[in-house]
Amino acid sequence: MSEQVLRKGDEITLDFGQHLVGYVTLSLLNVRSNADAPLRLKLTFGEMPCEVGEDFATYEGWLSRSWLQDEIVNVDVLPGTITLNRRYAFRYLKLEILETSIRYDLQLKEVFCTTVTSASMDAITPLPASVDEELVQLDQVSIHTLRDCMQTVFEDGPKRDRRLWIGDLRLQALVNYETFGCNDLVKRCLYLFAGSRLEGGQVGACLYEKPEPYVDDIYLYDYSLFFITTLWDYYEATKDRDTLEVLWPVAKEQVDIALKRLDKRGIVQDDETWYCFLDWHEQLNKQAGAQAVLIYGLKKALCIAREMGLSEQVEQLQTQIRRAEEAALQFLWDEEQGFFMSGEQRQVSWASQVWMILAEVVDVEVARALLQRLKGYYEAIPMNTPYMMHHYVEALLQCGQQQEALDQIRTYWGGMIKDGADTFWELYNPEDKTYSPYGSNLINSYCHAWSCTPSYFIRRYFAGEEG
Amino acid sequence: MSEQVLRKGDEITLDFGQHLVGYVTLSLLNVRSNADAPLRLKLTFGEMPCEVGEDFATYEGWLSRSWLQDEIVNVDVLPGTITLNRRYAFRYLKLEILETSIRYDLQLKEVFCTTVTSASMDAITPLPASVDEELVQLDQVSIHTLRDCMQTVFEDGPKRDRRLWIGDLRLQALVNYETFGCNDLVKRCLYLFAGSRLEGGQVGACLYEKPEPYVDDIYLYDYSLFFITTLWDYYEATKDRDTLEVLWPVAKEQVDIALKRLDKRGIVQDDETWYCFLDWHEQLNKQAGAQAVLIYGLKKALCIAREMGLSEQVEQLQTQIRRAEEAALQFLWDEEQGFFMSGEQRQVSWASQVWMILAEVVDVEVARALLQRLKGYYEAIPMNTPYMMHHYVEALLQCGQQQEALDQIRTYWGGMIKDGADTFWELYNPEDKTYSPYGSNLINSYCHAWSCTPSYFIRRYFAGEEG
Repeated sequence: MSEQVLRKGDEITLDFGQHLVGYVTLSLLNVRSNADAPLRLKLTFGEMPCEVGEDFATYEGWLSRSWLQDEIVNVDVLPGTITLNRRYAFRYLKLEILETSIRYDLQLKEVFCTTVTSASMDAITPLPASVDEELVQLDQVSIHTLRDCMQTVFEDGPKRDRRLWIGDLRLQALVNYETFGCNDLVKRCLYLFAGSRLEGGQVGACLYEKPEPYVDDIYLYDYSLFFITTLWDYYEATKDRDTLEVLWPVAKEQVDIALKRLDKRGIVQDDETWYCFLDWHEQLNKQAGAQAVLIYGLKKALCIAREMGLSEQVEQLQTQIRRAEEAALQFLWDEEQGFFMSGEQRQVSWASQVWMILAEVVDVEVARALLQRLKGYYEAIPMNTPYMMHHYVEALLQCGQQQEALDQIRTYWGGMIKDGADTFWELYNPEDKTYSPYGSNLINSYCHAWSCTPSYFIRRYFAGEEG
Repeated sequence: MSEQVLRKGDEITLDFGQHLVGYVTLSLLNVRSNADAPLRLKLTFGEMPCEVGEDFATYEGWLSRSWLQDEIVNVDVLPGTITLNRRYAFRYLKLEILETSIRYDLQLKEVFCTTVTSASMDAITPLPASVDEELVQLDQVSIHTLRDCMQTVFEDGPKRDRRLWIGDLRLQALVNYETFGCNDLVKRCLYLFAGSRLEGGQVGACLYEKPEPYVDDIYLYDYSLFFITTLWDYYEATKDRDTLEVLWPVAKEQVDIALKRLDKRGIVQDDETWYCFLDWHEQLNKQAGAQAVLIYGLKKALCIAREMGLSEQVEQLQTQIRRAEEAALQFLWDEEQGFFMSGEQRQVSWASQVWMILAEVVDVEVARALLQRLKGYYEAIPMNTPYMMHHYVEALLQCGQQQEALDQIRTYWGGMIKDGADTFWELYNPEDKTYSPYGSNLINSYCHAWSCTPSYFIRRYFAGEEG
């Protein structure tokens, strides 16, 4: 590289060989003669080849184009070494030499990235030798994904958003307990959410860290309830009773807020707004899924109340759970079709079925049959994200279908690796590989927190010494 | 300003009220909602309205477009305050809001420039009350021009080049002695030139300061000789005998090198290359001017040799001067036409006549008649720069034509002020106001060292208490 002469108008793309998050330094040398005018460079960073191959001017998505990582840099002094002051998430770097002068050309003497993460690779326990190569690779890619998202908070994606979302945090924390064990970072995130809530007391869907930590005004029904489940998971992993006790009132408040949304029947009220996440799908109705996440959250709250010996609250929660489950079975379960129905249009979706199973609204036998039936029901609204796929795998495991769960991991996350993933992607629909909920796959995140869960499954369920 | 809401696609231009050189800070606030994506701004700095009014994409000059001062800046954290890390020379700042997000707009809470200079305005002696308003203004604009060019060296222009050119240094130093009296900066520049010469021992035409001081490979016959004259001017202003003694060998070497270019007749050899500057004009032949600058330089060298009591060198220089003058009169002077001729085509130019007068090749009476004749000779190659105009005014003064010199200052530099100059321009041809030797007036420098000499004339010749 160092000998190649770059002239005005030239363009080169460097492949750093793996996904990186950090600060880039370029060492630049003028050749032929003195640099009698500034050097003007365009740098385009891409997690994926499409980002360095397509023209950002064609971008028409609805998320801000400012997430696309390109810079125009003017360098006043050559030879010189510059370190760009923004952090980038990338594997590819396209360099365009916009301007030199009639007197000089350029050589790139050195380019490197000073990576940043709060995860230590030293903390990772190697998988037993019995684990096959494919799972080792799935584990490795998961770990790299999580590593690159672990900064001063668990970011959802180091390229786009870079924020702490509680839906992502919950899954990242689960993987973290099995890998980096950086539990103080989970604690920090829980306190950030607890300490910066919305005006009504709700835990917000996401947080900004800078200039001072503050909560975004996005409220999502399921995400607020995940504060409870993330707190319980954290306690199970750490036995940090202090944090459990300090944060329990916030968790309990989420229960109370969530229950207020129930209608007279005891069902979560549906509406046209973006009140609940579940998955990215334009047609997906959220009512049944929201009801299921409520029940799931109530059950985690019950675990906490029991652990803390809060008998009155235990009793209260048991009642609330029973009512929510009964309402779900009475009003959402369609005995004839054998599916949970969501919304006025009585929509059948994978999200609704999976969450009802995770919430244990039906017993294992019914659940197993339900999933089997679902696979043959092509009208069901499908899954679009690794986030939803995680919950499906979790549901399979809950039904005792280990082999099917493992196959799913190999097919789905393994499919991303076959398609070139160094880190797991925010979005992956094998049927529509350029799927984006944002109007352009250029803006998709290709190292995304919620997609790193194969390590959790592999290390928790599939890496026993017995193989 | 702070209340105006800026949306994606909006553009505003700020007028800072005067020419500034320094570092710009912007304080930015998101409004409507959170800044959930980076802000992407385009900033265009202009010394002149044309720079913020015309599209740089249309630029087709031969100097690098990288001198045009525009930046694309991505701001990750809002609200936030950013200071751009490059120095700009500007009065106008155009801000284009390239990207916000669907959730937020922008307010500009504060913008300021932290100016830099090595000149102290406190050092300036006010002009006597007898000096008229127009001269006070000419003096003020000159002083601002010099101030903005005075950094760690005397730069030629704080926008473009930003280098130490010896042709500019010579004039800046003359103005400096009458104004800021920052004589150590002149000394530093002399030592930089002396300490970083070309391989043949020539003082280079210009220097770069960074990353380490080094000389450019441009050699100009007249500019090398100006080392001698600048050293003598410095000594006259400071009586710093140490510097005179240390740098005399370098000055003497310039004499020896310059004399080697003489042909058998004792005339500077002409060629097609850019071997001598004199002025920006495509047709200008440099031979006669070069010969005149040689004689001018030899005479300054003689002053130094005399001051240092170097009798042998005094004698040698007197001989060299006599020969060069005789050659000029014999081979370049056309008695019939009454002009000095330059080059094979026997070209008549203002530059040749003015420099022959400054070199005192003809006596005052002849010089005065020569200038008078020149004004009526429309075929003569005209002057294009304030640099050349300075020498013309100097020639008028040398001929005792004080009033005409003053009129010229009022008309020419006063014309720039009438045309909107806050600082004097690199190029000004009242007959062709968009004149540029670089193919575009966008790239012209509008605060330029060699144009700041009205203060020198006013304070030295026209600000006596007698008015």
